[in-house]
Amino acid sequence: MNLYGKDLICTQEWKIKELEAVLELAAKMKRDRYSPRWTSLLQHRTFLMFFYNPSVRTRQSFETAATELGGHAQFLEPRAMRLKTATTAGETIEDAANVMSRFAHGLGIRILEDQISAYGEGDDLLREYAKWCTIPVISMAHDKFHPCQGLADLMGLHTHLGDVKGKKTLVTWGSGALVRSWCSPQEYMLITSRFGMNVTLAYPEGYDLDPEVIAQVKANCAQNGTSFEIVHDSVSGYDGADVVYSRNWMSPVAYASGELDKASERAKAALHPGWITDAARMKRTNNALFIHPMPVDRGSEVTDEIASGPRSIIYDVAENRLHVQKALMALTMTDAL
Amino acid sequence: MNLYGKDLICTQEWKIKELEAVLELAAKMKRDRYSPRWTSLLQHRTFLMFFYNPSVRTRQSFETAATELGGHAQFLEPRAMRLKTATTAGETIEDAANVMSRFAHGLGIRILEDQISAYGEGDDLLREYAKWCTIPVISMAHDKFHPCQGLADLMGLHTHLGDVKGKKTLVTWGSGALVRSWCSPQEYMLITSRFGMNVTLAYPEGYDLDPEVIAQVKANCAQNGTSFEIVHDSVSGYDGADVVYSRNWMSPVAYASGELDKASERAKAALHPGWITDAARMKRTNNALFIHPMPVDRGSEVTDEIASGPRSIIYDVAENRLHVQKALMALTMTDAL
Amino acid sequence: MNLYGKDLICTQEWKIKELEAVLELAAKMKRDRYSPRWTSLLQHRTFLMFFYNPSVRTRQSFETAATELGGHAQFLEPRAMRLKTATTAGETIEDAANVMSRFAHGLGIRILEDQISAYGEGDDLLREYAKWCTIPVISMAHDKFHPCQGLADLMGLHTHLGDVKGKKTLVTWGSGALVRSWCSPQEYMLITSRFGMNVTLAYPEGYDLDPEVIAQVKANCAQNGTSFEIVHDSVSGYDGADVVYSRNWMSPVAYASGELDKASERAKAALHPGWITDAARMKRTNNALFIHPMPVDRGSEVTDEIASGPRSIIYDVAENRLHVQKALMALTMTDAL
Repeated sequence: MNLYGKDLICTQEWKIKELEAVLELAAKMKRDRYSPRWTSLLQHRTFLMFFYNPSVRTRQSFETAATELGGHAQFLEPRAMRLKTATTAGETIEDAANVMSRFAHGLGIRILEDQISAYGEGDDLLREYAKWCTIPVISMAHDKFHPCQGLADLMGLHTHLGDVKGKKTLVTWGSGALVRSWCSPQEYMLITSRFGMNVTLAYPEGYDLDPEVIAQVKANCAQNGTSFEIVHDSVSGYDGADVVYSRNWMSPVAYASGELDKASERAKAALHPGWITDAARMKRTNNALFIHPMPVDRGSEVTDEIASGPRSIIYDVAENRLHVQKALMALTMTDAL
Repeated sequence: MNLYGKDLICTQEWKIKELEAVLELAAKMKRDRYSPRWTSLLQHRTFLMFFYNPSVRTRQSFETAATELGGHAQFLEPRAMRLKTATTAGETIEDAANVMSRFAHGLGIRILEDQISAYGEGDDLLREYAKWCTIPVISMAHDKFHPCQGLADLMGLHTHLGDVKGKKTLVTWGSGALVRSWCSPQEYMLITSRFGMNVTLAYPEGYDLDPEVIAQVKANCAQNGTSFEIVHDSVSGYDGADVVYSRNWMSPVAYASGELDKASERAKAALHPGWITDAARMKRTNNALFIHPMPVDRGSEVTDEIASGPRSIIYDVAENRLHVQKALMALTMTDAL
Repeated sequence: MNLYGKDLICTQEWKIKELEAVLELAAKMKRDRYSPRWTSLLQHRTFLMFFYNPSVRTRQSFETAATELGGHAQFLEPRAMRLKTATTAGETIEDAANVMSRFAHGLGIRILEDQISAYGEGDDLLREYAKWCTIPVISMAHDKFHPCQGLADLMGLHTHLGDVKGKKTLVTWGSGALVRSWCSPQEYMLITSRFGMNVTLAYPEGYDLDPEVIAQVKANCAQNGTSFEIVHDSVSGYDGADVVYSRNWMSPVAYASGELDKASERAKAALHPGWITDAARMKRTNNALFIHPMPVDRGSEVTDEIASGPRSIIYDVAENRLHVQKALMALTMTDAL
């Protein structure tokens, strides 16, 4: 297996054993964070970070990852770039990608809902960069997927549950005003179903996720002989769950106006109060872990009691972002391992 | 003495001998800037810099400090973060600080007047971060204090005056339109009074500084048996001074409207022209040094003749920012020394 | 020859043999990119990058250059600085430059048309910084010149043509809506004429470049016994050319309103369609190379067929930016070579 140069846009596109290689290396890197085995892997090498959307945590974890591998991550805001579009003059992605490939050893891109005019455009952009770049392109979260978050989630489950095969995870919509992306819950369902978990998805009517992703999750479950179900109440999905994942997300009509209509989404979400992970609901589970991609909207998605409780692994999973990203960069930007 | 993990929000909260340890190490680092004794202390380590307010000099000096210690400072603009407030959904500082503590080894925060709605809010924010962070939190200038500037000032006085005990410093308001923060003069008075200087504070009626800080400066002087006085003319304070510090600052009613009212402050300052450090005034001193935290508003706060004259130590003090910050980072972010 | 501390604002101000030293070192660095001969040259050293105008490629190439030399480049946006002007209070360049010289080992500045109110102001600003800085000041593109691009261009011609003496280059205006700076074509004509090329400049009436630069290009040609001519049609200049350089640029009246009037410039450019480098025109050349400073406005300045064709060296020249900048930094910021 050689991952050198491989793009990561969605974990589903990588083989199980390739993902396992990342997770194994990440676990070693977590145990022995500053080992000379890895602190020079990216020495004098550059990782470009394109933030179409600003971010604090993703930036911190990627930039720290490069530093810990001996390299340097550049924080770039592409508003400075004038790319060619259907209606405006500018540079082609072909040209931009070819030149970046001369300077750097990897390219991360983050592009979320409010920088695009329809779901899927961010994914298209990443694939266009990946087509022309000779260096690996890594999603740092885009409209469809968030593979590094998915890997960090699974690493957390491995640590706290051991083998996840046959375990049940609930993925539930959470109340709140934050109009969140689909990328994290979609990636989470893909990778957990792929690794053998039973998945229950709970959300109010009108909050369907991407039907293609749901079909893939079903296919993953079918292949593993596990179950996938959707419920539309905020309680029953907790029954017997080993892991509870709660998260607000936007509805499929968020772009009806051609741009992300946050005000309308907030009004819609306000019609569904009480979709919150609380102690009463957690009592129905199999002493479930609580997991969340952060930032947490405490009091809406989850109570403080649960988010800060003994079964919450949110900080550990957040830390895992660093380790899985270090492992990914080491495996795709060098062929030293 | 072990400073590992210690926050620095105001020098007053550190023991004299702790501050002396920083200054001694800073002096060694200035004499032998690239010695292998320190160039690897932060290797592969990250210092996070949160600039609620933009800055050029503070950023340059902190980022250079990290580089010279072998580490990396990340320049972060928290506008990308959505923190929970009384009226808006978002992430708690508890969550943000816990995750940052997993990635990084230190956190610097800069937050000045125009990012807050009342004096003291910036200080509260730093203390909230410090409460939850397991890594040291260092003020990079906030509404109340600017400890790194105070240390750089004192280091400059040590270099050019030797022992400062019993020497007199004038701290005088300066004319001008720049509506400056209280943080630098307050920190300067705290640290110089603490180390045994006599302090004279001069300003037009209506430009009182924080009464709690003034009370602390008085207490420092009382403890050292030195003098503290306030005068409201622009001349008499120079008499017999060994050091002159001039600086424009805003009035205590700057936030009357709930946000920093710069236009009104500029109009008010225009009523007090001629509060300038010039040759005639300097003749009244004991051949005083001229010191200023920069940027200097030449022609308003001080004449070119004095700012660029033989007794001005402004560039040397500015350089000291680098050295005291390197010493601080070395002592609080590692336990190697 | 010792280039330590030398500013680079325009290649014309450097001796031929000094420019050759940069190009020779750049060629070695390109052949052996991560040789230990250079990967520690800037260790623990800082290069400050002042971007009055945002940029992606220039930033990537300078920041990568610092990383590959073992140092660190700080990305600074001077909007955070309040400089003194004729009408507003603020810091003098004298003060800013003196302090930066204490922290860093080099300073790059980028300032283009839309940040100034008349052609030449950017150049004045760089020279004012250079006057006060004790560290080298390097243009990262300003209104008049783009020396690093000129060096990268010439390096590309050396690679693909060998000796350029007596060869002919066409520099032609290109159609399009991008209202480009004069800095790249002016620098290109200066450096190619200086190194012995015949230069033909083609543009529609009304698109004259800086008359002082044109006079210097003529003087360079006179000194070398080569030819310089200007034509005002989009075809004849191609005859017998060995290198074709096409690029949109603004007219000399762009600042008529005291700020860059992009809308008016776009309307004016629209009157001159068809100034495009295409296969038919290239057939008139001596199998010419195609060169462009990027970003390319495909379909306006040049056809895809030519920009992506076998004689296009645009990506190789873009990569050269990295190598010439590494060589420059090594020679001016250290005296190790």
